[in-house]
Amino acid sequence: MTKAPQSGLLTESNMALFADYYELTMGKADFDSGNNAICTENYFVRSIPQGQYMIAAGLEQVIHYILNLRFTDADLKWLKESKPTPDMSDNFLDYLRHFKFDGDVYAVPEGTPVFANEPLINVTGRSIDIQIFETYLLNVMNFQTLIATKTARIVHAARGRTCFDFGARRAHGRDAGILAARASFIGGAAGTSLVIAGQYFNIPYVGTTAHKFIMDRPSELAAFRDYAKSFPHNTLLLIDTYDTVQGARNACIVGKEMQARGEQLKGVRLDSGDLLALSKAVREIFDEVGLHDVQIFASNDLDEFQIDRLLASGAPIDGFGVGTRLATGANFNPLTGEGGPSALPGVYKHVERIENEKV
Amino acid sequence: MTKAPQSGLLTESNMALFADYYELTMGKADFDSGNNAICTENYFVRSIPQGQYMIAAGLEQVIHYILNLRFTDADLKWLKESKPTPDMSDNFLDYLRHFKFDGDVYAVPEGTPVFANEPLINVTGRSIDIQIFETYLLNVMNFQTLIATKTARIVHAARGRTCFDFGARRAHGRDAGILAARASFIGGAAGTSLVIAGQYFNIPYVGTTAHKFIMDRPSELAAFRDYAKSFPHNTLLLIDTYDTVQGARNACIVGKEMQARGEQLKGVRLDSGDLLALSKAVREIFDEVGLHDVQIFASNDLDEFQIDRLLASGAPIDGFGVGTRLATGANFNPLTGEGGPSALPGVYKHVERIENEKV
Repeated sequence: MTKAPQSGLLTESNMALFADYYELTMGKADFDSGNNAICTENYFVRSIPQGQYMIAAGLEQVIHYILNLRFTDADLKWLKESKPTPDMSDNFLDYLRHFKFDGDVYAVPEGTPVFANEPLINVTGRSIDIQIFETYLLNVMNFQTLIATKTARIVHAARGRTCFDFGARRAHGRDAGILAARASFIGGAAGTSLVIAGQYFNIPYVGTTAHKFIMDRPSELAAFRDYAKSFPHNTLLLIDTYDTVQGARNACIVGKEMQARGEQLKGVRLDSGDLLALSKAVREIFDEVGLHDVQIFASNDLDEFQIDRLLASGAPIDGFGVGTRLATGANFNPLTGEGGPSALPGVYKHVERIENEKV
Repeated sequence: MTKAPQSGLLTESNMALFADYYELTMGKADFDSGNNAICTENYFVRSIPQGQYMIAAGLEQVIHYILNLRFTDADLKWLKESKPTPDMSDNFLDYLRHFKFDGDVYAVPEGTPVFANEPLINVTGRSIDIQIFETYLLNVMNFQTLIATKTARIVHAARGRTCFDFGARRAHGRDAGILAARASFIGGAAGTSLVIAGQYFNIPYVGTTAHKFIMDRPSELAAFRDYAKSFPHNTLLLIDTYDTVQGARNACIVGKEMQARGEQLKGVRLDSGDLLALSKAVREIFDEVGLHDVQIFASNDLDEFQIDRLLASGAPIDGFGVGTRLATGANFNPLTGEGGPSALPGVYKHVERIENEKV
């Protein structure tokens, strides 16, 4: 039978099982043949799918795992009774029962720029032991380094303007949403839309409105007024639900009303259409009525290529919300043919065998 | 300060915070303006990035979330004190304190083929309430449906041969590794390499060896013998560490030794090189010595396009391990120019507003 549905699949008590089974089958065969040399393995990336550098991220989760990895009696009982292909033996399960990592780990700090073939992590320990966390280490480092690197590219293209992670809805699972927010902050994002990531990592989290909020009211103007009333100090209006230029004019009306109340319209968000032409038109509309401080934020399937083109063409955009292509990495864009594969092909490879030590 | 490092970031007690903050800011503005109509929202995909159909997956996690979603006192205290942009109010936090979903959800069962613009999930309830789980629903459905669909395409290309998920090391986070195994099983995979997914979802999990196991011994033949001794009933030998043809000959020696002991070599795995030419050469080597039952498995950055070409060309391959491109979805392949973006652009959209109900 399967376990009851639950939200958090990985917990402190079952994390030892986050392993490709070959780490255990190799371990058993090593154990049976008395092969457990002191070895060194390195985590590195042979070639970077896009660009010339990466930003290292994920080490905190890897170190926590290595320090806390234990096989519980329940894990071991299940490993035996679930009859995997091939199966385990009592004496190797007993080895796992006493498993505790006592090797050495060297690594570059998170946020460090690294290059192809440069080791990000160096692990030395008994052969069986350092193999057990290969999958976990690769999973965490490949993903977070992918996202931190993608974000650094996006932030570079944004030339000092703020970029936020809006990617949780298209991230690959819940954990990916949370870790993408973490990794993007390491890569230079100003914050995230994902509340739980704000809580875990103490990073800024932000929110505005969706089109639904506008559509759920008799008029766009009524929606803007409702929103401004709720958030007099931080009103950011989504102006593209019906017609962006008319939306900007409606935002002007509300901006002026706020001014009269001693408040200030913070900004507007464009989420569709020709962002270059629209941002110029909207800037003009606000400037004409003296609302020079109203900022323009843009979102809508952005990436570093599009942000670079927008700003090179003089788009008066003050900040970007980047979703899908930030939270899924160097994601190929079928509209432009730009981008690359959404996976970092990092490896964890045997680089040295120091001495044999009988198990 | 940030929370202490831990493995499972999403838990039963903090899951309400897995939300884009705009779900709460819109909720507050709705609450302040007395707008909480009974509405219907649909989850659907407007256009499928690759192919003509999708395989629905993820519903179990969505339903568990909707049924169990609660804001704890600790969540609410933190939402107020963390001073987000914009900030919350006591009366709306009190609304959240009493939140419990009491609307209706209709959905297609997991594993159902679905088409563009066809709703996979239909939610009816109060406007504020059905908005709160947008991010969670999109995250889970977009990812698992992406993976189930990708797997169905891979399994179709494999023409009845077994396909296993080997993707955990390149999946986007730990949760993605676990849920990719689940979704790929729904999409037709025979099992996974990821132990914890085997445990949670009661699906077959399998393991062989890595190149490290071979390299860590005086010779390939010695490594094969060690492995066969540990797993006399399920020996699958990785034969491409040095020279694949010589590896097949060494596997023949061990296969014959096993035969003499009344055992049987189950198969070999090819993980590099020209899989068409090598699988033909290896098949011939085994057939020459009468080891007709030794199966040939292949891995190495496979996807549906490559599997289709291999089998159309007559590659004698009996099973496939598919990693990166299965666990990251319709992932673009820079070598062949095939594949597409690794995200399903599913949306959760307002389709009906039935009546207004004062909060």
